[in-house]
Amino acid sequence: MTDAFKEHIEAQLPFLKESKLLVACSGGLDSVSLAHLLKEIDCEIALIHCNFSLRGTESDEDENFVVELAESLSIPVFTETFDTRAYAGDRKLSVQMAARELRYNWFYEILESFNYNFVVTAHHANDNLETFLINLSRGSGLRGLTGIPEQNDRIVRPLLPFTRDQLLKYAVANKIYWREDSSNASPDYLRNNLRLEVIPKLKEATGAIFENAIVTQKHLNTSQSLIDDYMALVYNLVVTETTDGYAVNIEKLKELPHTEALLFELLQGFGFTAWEDIINLLDAQSGKHIVSETHRLLKDRNQLLLTEITSEEDKEISIDANTSGIEIPISLRFSIVEEINRKNRNTAYLDYAKLKYPLILRKWKEGDSFQPFGMKGKKKLSKFFKDEKLSLVAKEKIRVLCSDDQIIWIVGMRSDDRFKVTNDTRKILKIVYSPD
Amino acid sequence: MTDAFKEHIEAQLPFLKESKLLVACSGGLDSVSLAHLLKEIDCEIALIHCNFSLRGTESDEDENFVVELAESLSIPVFTETFDTRAYAGDRKLSVQMAARELRYNWFYEILESFNYNFVVTAHHANDNLETFLINLSRGSGLRGLTGIPEQNDRIVRPLLPFTRDQLLKYAVANKIYWREDSSNASPDYLRNNLRLEVIPKLKEATGAIFENAIVTQKHLNTSQSLIDDYMALVYNLVVTETTDGYAVNIEKLKELPHTEALLFELLQGFGFTAWEDIINLLDAQSGKHIVSETHRLLKDRNQLLLTEITSEEDKEISIDANTSGIEIPISLRFSIVEEINRKNRNTAYLDYAKLKYPLILRKWKEGDSFQPFGMKGKKKLSKFFKDEKLSLVAKEKIRVLCSDDQIIWIVGMRSDDRFKVTNDTRKILKIVYSPD
Repeated sequence: MTDAFKEHIEAQLPFLKESKLLVACSGGLDSVSLAHLLKEIDCEIALIHCNFSLRGTESDEDENFVVELAESLSIPVFTETFDTRAYAGDRKLSVQMAARELRYNWFYEILESFNYNFVVTAHHANDNLETFLINLSRGSGLRGLTGIPEQNDRIVRPLLPFTRDQLLKYAVANKIYWREDSSNASPDYLRNNLRLEVIPKLKEATGAIFENAIVTQKHLNTSQSLIDDYMALVYNLVVTETTDGYAVNIEKLKELPHTEALLFELLQGFGFTAWEDIINLLDAQSGKHIVSETHRLLKDRNQLLLTEITSEEDKEISIDANTSGIEIPISLRFSIVEEINRKNRNTAYLDYAKLKYPLILRKWKEGDSFQPFGMKGKKKLSKFFKDEKLSLVAKEKIRVLCSDDQIIWIVGMRSDDRFKVTNDTRKILKIVYSPD
Repeated sequence: MTDAFKEHIEAQLPFLKESKLLVACSGGLDSVSLAHLLKEIDCEIALIHCNFSLRGTESDEDENFVVELAESLSIPVFTETFDTRAYAGDRKLSVQMAARELRYNWFYEILESFNYNFVVTAHHANDNLETFLINLSRGSGLRGLTGIPEQNDRIVRPLLPFTRDQLLKYAVANKIYWREDSSNASPDYLRNNLRLEVIPKLKEATGAIFENAIVTQKHLNTSQSLIDDYMALVYNLVVTETTDGYAVNIEKLKELPHTEALLFELLQGFGFTAWEDIINLLDAQSGKHIVSETHRLLKDRNQLLLTEITSEEDKEISIDANTSGIEIPISLRFSIVEEINRKNRNTAYLDYAKLKYPLILRKWKEGDSFQPFGMKGKKKLSKFFKDEKLSLVAKEKIRVLCSDDQIIWIVGMRSDDRFKVTNDTRKILKIVYSPD
């Protein structure tokens, strides 16, 4: 197992060996094995453990176990205790969703504050196959079958090619101890049933189901990429950006084969569910429209006009010089720092002296332009987004931070060259964006 | 069940009610139920049963059972006994492949000879899910997960939305008898294991797996269609037809995203397996080439040239006036008939007096043209195939039948207007093509 794991890291995820890693560790077989494996191949790791206070003393014993594991491995450990039920109650979330939100927010916080590069989680081939079957049983489309991604943003999952059985053998052979989570058998009935009842039978019948499901998912990912490429072409052919949204040219759309499927691909993510009504809209009278919770689709002569239904969240936010952070509509934290370290898309460093307060956070709009960091000239945001191949829905969500009508940061994407930190800078404003 | 079945036919397969149907009937639960259901909704049916002589007296008892079923339903029945093992031995086929070949050849023969329109088979949702899981366990790509088609050519499968359980309930409630096939438990180990061990557990865990797997497969079919549409665009951009094959423009291909995936899509079906070598060919020296069993891919400056490795099968075949049929390289049967009935793509009717023997059967070549049936002018075959959206590999397989250097029939696609049967025709040549 160690050799196979090492080979996999070197071939597929070589950057992990030059990074500082936080190993998300529950104390269970999977994450404990992952910590041992990463340590064995000389990665620089720390453990990070959330105590969600959901299972009384058992939760605390898990935490103690992880702390002791870190000691025995001579590595740092971060732990935090959350009142998950209260958090869920306050925000009207399920306990599972609340735990997820708390976990990832805190992970990103530690990543930033302690200069770690990635969080690694112990998702493995069994988790992946379970997710595949769950999505199949829910009638998911192609995207739902493409599997748990090996990396998204700063979360990396190096165990995806390996099965729970392989981890078990590794742990037993190396006398590694772990804690059995009593909740393994309760909260997600479907997943546990698949894990305990279905997948063992499937493995018995087919032999190589884990290995080959991964091959299938590679193929499906490639298929999805080709569809994405095609949709980028279709988008250029039939969509134009308007001052407050998008216009789909119906005539041009109808000239393309599989019009309905294309319309579905273009509009997915905007919350529409009444697909038949949308198809009918293609041939409806001008003025007819359909709304989702967030968007309106209006038939206007030869066009379908998509506009956002503006909500409280979409209003401009004014940010004073003494603001340390905001949570709504997005999470930003502001601080004055001495130097730049570990720059990434979600962190901006700006020359404080060049800013005029209050800063304004708003949605981007057609006509916006900025001077991308590292470039001399100006660039329209619409062009920038096209080059970055942003989907319609991703573009909709983009917010810009402005100083005196000038964009200083396209949040989570690129800062403006005019406000960058130079040798003359005395005071550096650091802004950290935490995506959902 | 009867109501749901009737609704499904009326909504999805309404043409079945105006057709003469052959019900492929083994005597088992699925096909016996299908016969009863079709009879109940007043379809015009006959039973068709192959006795493959593989299970001794049991095979003969199955045949008797089907004959008696037809009698009790007051419908016609066709039976034929095959020496499957001898056929398989002669042609070096597996018994399963031999049975398949015998069955479909004979089905098409009866369709033609007795003027039936379609063969209906009893494949149902369980078969479909089994196939899905088998292909998943083999690492299949998107196409392999799209499911058993509801119709291909003249084979229709009206039970695909229904489960074996539904059929069982229907049969029991209606006191329908069927024969248990003792081989259900033997020849296809994997399929039987999925049927008996895995799928019941999967159903228990997920509830709506059958219904939702169908929804997923609809999505996947749509995804595949979008990829096909995209590939038609890519084909036009990067492929040109040469006198003996195809040229892929490497420079243009490399300008597109996911070059390797596109190359894979373009070349699949030509028997290549060494995909890494093919990718390397993009940057190799002119003159390097890779061969599959049937094709050669040659790097030539900025192009990849694809040509067929010609075999015995590709030589021209000369057909005399007294030939009643040929089997190699494709199956054609010739007969003189009194009148035209039931024309389709696999049957041509020609004015015998206008033909000059021997007829020549050959592969089509660049520069070929013909006068499509029903049209005044001539059309290049390359244009015709483009309009018909034939894939590269489908085009490769096309054969034309010629008289005195003129194309009289693009076999299995379109006959030539100049040789069509008119009021003046005295003698009609009927040619029936049986695809593999």
